[in-house]
Amino acid sequence: MAYDAVYDKFKDECGVFGIWSLGQSEEAANFTYLGLHALQHRGQEAAGIVSTDGSTLHAHREMGHVADIFTADVLNRLKGGAAIGHVRYSTAGASHVRNAQPLAVQYAGGAVAVAHNGNLVNAEALRAELEESGSIFQTTSDTEVVVHLMARARSAGPSDPVQRLIAEVRAALARVSGAYSILFLSPQGLVGARDPLGFRPLVVGKLKGSWVLASETTALDLIEAEYVREVEPGELVIIDGTGLRSEPLFPGQPAPERKGRCVFEHIYFARPDSVLFGKSVYSVRHSLGRELAELHPVPADLVVPVPDSGVPAAIGYAERSGIPFATGLVRSHYVGRTFIEPQQSIRHFGVKLKLNALKDVLRGKRVVVVDDSVVRGTTSRKIVKMIRDAGASEVHLRISSPPTAWPCYYGMDTPTRQELIAATHGVDEIAKYVTADSLGYLTLDGLYRALGDSRQGYCDACFSGEYLVKFPEQRERRGAGLRVVGA
Amino acid sequence: MAYDAVYDKFKDECGVFGIWSLGQSEEAANFTYLGLHALQHRGQEAAGIVSTDGSTLHAHREMGHVADIFTADVLNRLKGGAAIGHVRYSTAGASHVRNAQPLAVQYAGGAVAVAHNGNLVNAEALRAELEESGSIFQTTSDTEVVVHLMARARSAGPSDPVQRLIAEVRAALARVSGAYSILFLSPQGLVGARDPLGFRPLVVGKLKGSWVLASETTALDLIEAEYVREVEPGELVIIDGTGLRSEPLFPGQPAPERKGRCVFEHIYFARPDSVLFGKSVYSVRHSLGRELAELHPVPADLVVPVPDSGVPAAIGYAERSGIPFATGLVRSHYVGRTFIEPQQSIRHFGVKLKLNALKDVLRGKRVVVVDDSVVRGTTSRKIVKMIRDAGASEVHLRISSPPTAWPCYYGMDTPTRQELIAATHGVDEIAKYVTADSLGYLTLDGLYRALGDSRQGYCDACFSGEYLVKFPEQRERRGAGLRVVGA
Amino acid sequence: MAYDAVYDKFKDECGVFGIWSLGQSEEAANFTYLGLHALQHRGQEAAGIVSTDGSTLHAHREMGHVADIFTADVLNRLKGGAAIGHVRYSTAGASHVRNAQPLAVQYAGGAVAVAHNGNLVNAEALRAELEESGSIFQTTSDTEVVVHLMARARSAGPSDPVQRLIAEVRAALARVSGAYSILFLSPQGLVGARDPLGFRPLVVGKLKGSWVLASETTALDLIEAEYVREVEPGELVIIDGTGLRSEPLFPGQPAPERKGRCVFEHIYFARPDSVLFGKSVYSVRHSLGRELAELHPVPADLVVPVPDSGVPAAIGYAERSGIPFATGLVRSHYVGRTFIEPQQSIRHFGVKLKLNALKDVLRGKRVVVVDDSVVRGTTSRKIVKMIRDAGASEVHLRISSPPTAWPCYYGMDTPTRQELIAATHGVDEIAKYVTADSLGYLTLDGLYRALGDSRQGYCDACFSGEYLVKFPEQRERRGAGLRVVGA
Amino acid sequence: MAYDAVYDKFKDECGVFGIWSLGQSEEAANFTYLGLHALQHRGQEAAGIVSTDGSTLHAHREMGHVADIFTADVLNRLKGGAAIGHVRYSTAGASHVRNAQPLAVQYAGGAVAVAHNGNLVNAEALRAELEESGSIFQTTSDTEVVVHLMARARSAGPSDPVQRLIAEVRAALARVSGAYSILFLSPQGLVGARDPLGFRPLVVGKLKGSWVLASETTALDLIEAEYVREVEPGELVIIDGTGLRSEPLFPGQPAPERKGRCVFEHIYFARPDSVLFGKSVYSVRHSLGRELAELHPVPADLVVPVPDSGVPAAIGYAERSGIPFATGLVRSHYVGRTFIEPQQSIRHFGVKLKLNALKDVLRGKRVVVVDDSVVRGTTSRKIVKMIRDAGASEVHLRISSPPTAWPCYYGMDTPTRQELIAATHGVDEIAKYVTADSLGYLTLDGLYRALGDSRQGYCDACFSGEYLVKFPEQRERRGAGLRVVGA
Repeated sequence: MAYDAVYDKFKDECGVFGIWSLGQSEEAANFTYLGLHALQHRGQEAAGIVSTDGSTLHAHREMGHVADIFTADVLNRLKGGAAIGHVRYSTAGASHVRNAQPLAVQYAGGAVAVAHNGNLVNAEALRAELEESGSIFQTTSDTEVVVHLMARARSAGPSDPVQRLIAEVRAALARVSGAYSILFLSPQGLVGARDPLGFRPLVVGKLKGSWVLASETTALDLIEAEYVREVEPGELVIIDGTGLRSEPLFPGQPAPERKGRCVFEHIYFARPDSVLFGKSVYSVRHSLGRELAELHPVPADLVVPVPDSGVPAAIGYAERSGIPFATGLVRSHYVGRTFIEPQQSIRHFGVKLKLNALKDVLRGKRVVVVDDSVVRGTTSRKIVKMIRDAGASEVHLRISSPPTAWPCYYGMDTPTRQELIAATHGVDEIAKYVTADSLGYLTLDGLYRALGDSRQGYCDACFSGEYLVKFPEQRERRGAGLRVVGA
Repeated sequence: MAYDAVYDKFKDECGVFGIWSLGQSEEAANFTYLGLHALQHRGQEAAGIVSTDGSTLHAHREMGHVADIFTADVLNRLKGGAAIGHVRYSTAGASHVRNAQPLAVQYAGGAVAVAHNGNLVNAEALRAELEESGSIFQTTSDTEVVVHLMARARSAGPSDPVQRLIAEVRAALARVSGAYSILFLSPQGLVGARDPLGFRPLVVGKLKGSWVLASETTALDLIEAEYVREVEPGELVIIDGTGLRSEPLFPGQPAPERKGRCVFEHIYFARPDSVLFGKSVYSVRHSLGRELAELHPVPADLVVPVPDSGVPAAIGYAERSGIPFATGLVRSHYVGRTFIEPQQSIRHFGVKLKLNALKDVLRGKRVVVVDDSVVRGTTSRKIVKMIRDAGASEVHLRISSPPTAWPCYYGMDTPTRQELIAATHGVDEIAKYVTADSLGYLTLDGLYRALGDSRQGYCDACFSGEYLVKFPEQRERRGAGLRVVGA
Repeated sequence: MAYDAVYDKFKDECGVFGIWSLGQSEEAANFTYLGLHALQHRGQEAAGIVSTDGSTLHAHREMGHVADIFTADVLNRLKGGAAIGHVRYSTAGASHVRNAQPLAVQYAGGAVAVAHNGNLVNAEALRAELEESGSIFQTTSDTEVVVHLMARARSAGPSDPVQRLIAEVRAALARVSGAYSILFLSPQGLVGARDPLGFRPLVVGKLKGSWVLASETTALDLIEAEYVREVEPGELVIIDGTGLRSEPLFPGQPAPERKGRCVFEHIYFARPDSVLFGKSVYSVRHSLGRELAELHPVPADLVVPVPDSGVPAAIGYAERSGIPFATGLVRSHYVGRTFIEPQQSIRHFGVKLKLNALKDVLRGKRVVVVDDSVVRGTTSRKIVKMIRDAGASEVHLRISSPPTAWPCYYGMDTPTRQELIAATHGVDEIAKYVTADSLGYLTLDGLYRALGDSRQGYCDACFSGEYLVKFPEQRERRGAGLRVVGA
Repeated sequence: MAYDAVYDKFKDECGVFGIWSLGQSEEAANFTYLGLHALQHRGQEAAGIVSTDGSTLHAHREMGHVADIFTADVLNRLKGGAAIGHVRYSTAGASHVRNAQPLAVQYAGGAVAVAHNGNLVNAEALRAELEESGSIFQTTSDTEVVVHLMARARSAGPSDPVQRLIAEVRAALARVSGAYSILFLSPQGLVGARDPLGFRPLVVGKLKGSWVLASETTALDLIEAEYVREVEPGELVIIDGTGLRSEPLFPGQPAPERKGRCVFEHIYFARPDSVLFGKSVYSVRHSLGRELAELHPVPADLVVPVPDSGVPAAIGYAERSGIPFATGLVRSHYVGRTFIEPQQSIRHFGVKLKLNALKDVLRGKRVVVVDDSVVRGTTSRKIVKMIRDAGASEVHLRISSPPTAWPCYYGMDTPTRQELIAATHGVDEIAKYVTADSLGYLTLDGLYRALGDSRQGYCDACFSGEYLVKFPEQRERRGAGLRVVGA
């Protein structure tokens, strides 16, 4: 269960939520708040809600946790029956409120707010092009590119405001490449779109007469909305006073043969209680563990998960192998953003602040440790050491995914290829580095076997290097000339 | 002395400050902080600083007072040898951090920050035009229009970055009408401009080898910079590594015959210790009081100012009339933004929280009360009542300016014409309304006599209705569709 | 694993930490901060540290979480080589910073700070007596009584400051009845004491040359201190420049035959990675689950814990029964103090904010749910419903402790007897109320069998009603006349 | 007008306010809030209110300004029809919320809150005595001593709670020496007392049917209460459901021949709009200026006050001398506690942040500068330099009080005698040090002539060294062993 940040492997995910109940309820901001609360694992650094009462957009964005940002007072000011929200876990360099979402702007089409999960591979090129023709940028986020493209799309468009919005969304998204599950809110309607390969998840729910869009089903569960279905890759859903309707995002354009659903969402990102791409995350992880036990059996006394993300796979491994499952590592629930490591301190506390090993469980035992992935290897090394220091006689590390050897360009904030230990080291070398007695990864075949699905539906570039959407070689951020401290 | 907000007559002023000491000092943000502190009377609602180290812009903007916003930590992050800053007192509807300045953006020219004092009369029209051709707006401030125009101005411009910046500034400002004393900061240079009529003040100072631009000389005094001269109406000053140079803002364009220096800056806005448009504010106000005594003598026992803004004129009135000057009203120094009037309270405290009358001074006395202006009349009425309740036998109100009968469109936030009591009532009616035994205003002639200058140099539209820059009839804000609560 | 507050069953626990490294280190406050971080599960409402440099006590106490309270700046001000700290989860009525600990006072003996875990049963009577003879009380906490008694104990005491402190501690504690694991810090020494029955835990650790006292061993683990032993019930440990020495708290007084170690610490309070009363908490809980499986077997498909507290017992139950263990409930990590339930909201979210059921795991399954206790029954009822709503065909609730039928007066904040469902209802009635298909509790015998220890060593009054320390009938708080809002 | 902190001469004053309207109004906290707002000049560092609804005391104390501390939410929680409040400007060493007032405690008499303006000269001795007999101290404020004495006073007292409170107040105050204007609030009554010499002010007001007590009449003015009279030195006023009654504080004890009203309250502390000791503060200061002109005439062009405290005396000086009054120094209204001087800054800004000289007014002029006092001389030196730098040809400093040569032990926080420039230097030396062309102080005779009253009614120890209440030689704080950082 990866809905935590025990050790901050991957940080740049986001979550989105939208509800349209205009005319039926005045609680859109409240429901969005609850939805973001349930999606908080996808981004803990900043959050925002933009609501509408049918004429005005009301916005609030702030750094921090959902529960701290949205006080009763703020929620009261976010008036109206429709809203979208966003949670974000950005990279350090850009962690300013200015980059928080939803982005809310005024343009010729009126007012629109946008909440985006994903990453555009041609954002820099588009940004340069837009700047060349006179656009100004106030954030460093990809999402601002989309809004500029919408604004530029205006021409002899339809006069109906929702039709115009749809036309602009289509025109803008036709220009961008990459991953996007994205929501647009205008006073007249709520529009959701998912890129043709469908990298990031997006689901449709129904709450009494109102429609809901969310990154994961867990947000539906909390507000007791009914899960209806996925927004399909390449689908556009439009919600307004007439209800929900679906259209192809790019009509006439053939659907790509291979889809790009992020397989890592199933391995790590999503909450285990979500139904993702039509499958239970918990069940998938459980199967990954069983598959791992098939591939890498080892005589041992205990199967121990790295909490919380490794738990379901560890249970699966234990069941398949017949080795008892045990909680050998305990995590602290009080690790937050603000924890200050004493400066004069004689050692670095790192993982110790988050995890502690149970000596009485581990002492003298041959231990299989199940984790979801190895990134740089440094954290795995500390965990293996912690378990061995607690008295384990053997430590066998089992990873419920293939070696992570390639960076992601579609919305997951991985280190560069140079920093990924699996990019430059073989499994034996990694085992040695992390000081494990043995190390076993899942294979790509095993992964899809456990998933019970064809590789044709998924992106696994982080394991395979097979990037489904081309991207420019040069990925250096231009615009180093603008840096925003605070606001 | 208007450097306070005893009763919030006019709120929408701003103050700007800039310093270029790149290569000589790393204290640009510190000096800007001090400069803004000295200009705080021009805007107490939000403040911001953008600094540059020659390659990156570092920005911080926040709601609140200068001394609260710029902690040591924030100042440390505002690195570099050049900076601009802004203080703002916006109207309630737009009082969000999003509208705080300096505005910092990235565009084809690189990164630029803008700090603007004034008001553009054709901003709405330009905004509509820009939106039609694809611009997006993230604030409701006029200043964003200027930046868009700069970004659009790009074409086959000069390759030198400062030359390009100048070309863009010229192109943008050529399109706007109204009042602007405005600073632009790029990593390569600091540019200041004042509109051809010169509504708002802007001065040049020198601090050792560094150049400073500021709204008022009081900011120079605090940092012990030397006052060099005004930036002239229609002048462009460019400061970079080569020093300061001056150019006409619009070369070849004839200077307007009549200038538009805001005469109300002398009456109310500016700090009395500033030298404004080449004249001491204190001395001007003192002369206004003398002139007022000439025009509206009255037998009385005391001359009492409405503090702090009425003090110099009251001293002048007292001197000219021979009636003793006295402090009959005391103001509280602890009135701030955050004062909460108890909700259940049995009466409205209003002016009482800010002013108290000295019974022992006023009892049985015939009192001349000197104030700088009457807006709606409600506050004057309360002050007259307060003085009479304290025992004054007669209350003669003297105003050190002509009747304020017309709204300002050039940077002062006045009520609508309907709300201005002098727009719809004669002096006798106003006297009756405010319950004064007599009421005397200055005349326009008297005003310029006291100022010792020709009316040709000034805008007095708020008194005369003679608007020097045309503006569109319709001044309703479009864009009601976007409202930003918080951020 | 009870180190969380999934549903706030029991709130009035506390945690204490102390370290004496005067002359060896200046990091006492840093280590105390880390120790409190590891003990945060014992109290999340307020925290405090008092340090000493050998002459002055430096104190800081605040409402909130440890990581938020102790900024680098605050830690820097807490100078010196010795410190004690306290975390607290008080009841709502008294949740003010004034009641936060350590309490730091000045009296004839100099300055002393006190951190107390436990509850005194005769505090009210002593308070009344002290007030009658002239004491004033500034808090509503029991601990202030102890300090008053120390101050009153002064007389012809020894002249050595540590000896005097010990004499005063003994004199004060001789008057109080109830539960206390308590630390005293003066500039000259650190003293720890545990009541003769030893209700609350307290352990001794060693960090290089320095001695540490802490509520649980998890605090030692984090700072990499070595666990030495328990402070024994009725033991006094004195730490100063000469090292650590041990004395009987009440010399000559015979040790009570039955001890009162809180058995509920093993069931719920303590962190599973702690060694408590000489036993691994995880292992005990695991055994409780095995025992429960022996006593209440049931044909089922899954064993599901209520996270996190029910996990080890559920693993034990699964192992013993052979029924697969599964994670059927997922908890949110983002539930905090500040979560605001939308006011207008159409339903109460309660447990839903904290837990979500995994439909794909539970659908169609016969589920054994393992929890540690049932208090009022309302939360259990919601959990059973949640699991059934997720599709479980049968829900069998298994509780890893006997029925909680009696309130605790020794430091755990239970509801009144009237509110405890087991006080007034039989097991069948409770099963019906919580809508479980079956309900099984552990027996007292089973509890001690699992614990592997004799009942003579423990207090189980919450199950048995056998209160080991007498208490006054009337437990109403006097002093309703003083209520402190804020500070 | 000294109701500001232009340069922090004297910091340790306090202000108190109380209202009893139980049964008539629920707004006691609101009125107290307004009263404290009007008394904020007496203490800007911390404030508190304790209210009562007739059964419980509700308290809130915090560091900061009145308007920031008392939010609507806090005021709502301060329920009931009676309340007392306190503002405090403590010395740096003790500036912690723990020392904020009102102090609220529980003792045998029930609950009581105390708000104290003044200073006790035998507090240390009493504290030592109380500690010896078993009292504990949680603050370092003198006021805690009073409460301990009240608690100790219990014995066979009267059974009526107000009678008991009065008896305890009398018993406690009989033990203390020094200055106190002090309020006591219990759920049954409000008691005010002033020491027999009456050092600090205290007045009675009436607001409809309710009675009010306040340090100054300005607090009555704001809430539109009627000023009734001073509480007399040595008087006790008791307010409860039966109305207000007066008793001698120490019945049978002869009134001291000489009273000790603080003459410096008239010179500097009190707000100019207050009626103090039966006289208008403004009028007194005006007369001080006239007297000063008589004693120290000088040929000059302008009389300039050091704002705001020097204004009334400067007006008086100008009137008497015939030299024109002018505002030659402007003060900033934005100087607050939180102003951060840039650390790297090349010079110290000090007085410049608060005052600026008007060059156009002062240039070439012979200037009489009127200030209320000279303490260390450093600030006066800076002001003289600032005026001379602005172009004044001569600077003549006139002080509206005699030389301040002795420290105050009765509630004003003066430096030690060694630091007072007038203790060790003659007038000519001081003139030289502050670089004035001439320097003139008022004489004691002149002071009382201006005051229009006999010296028998006042304390002028800071000028004369004639201390009316004896104090122990040794004034070193014991109890250095306890220092409280934060709370």
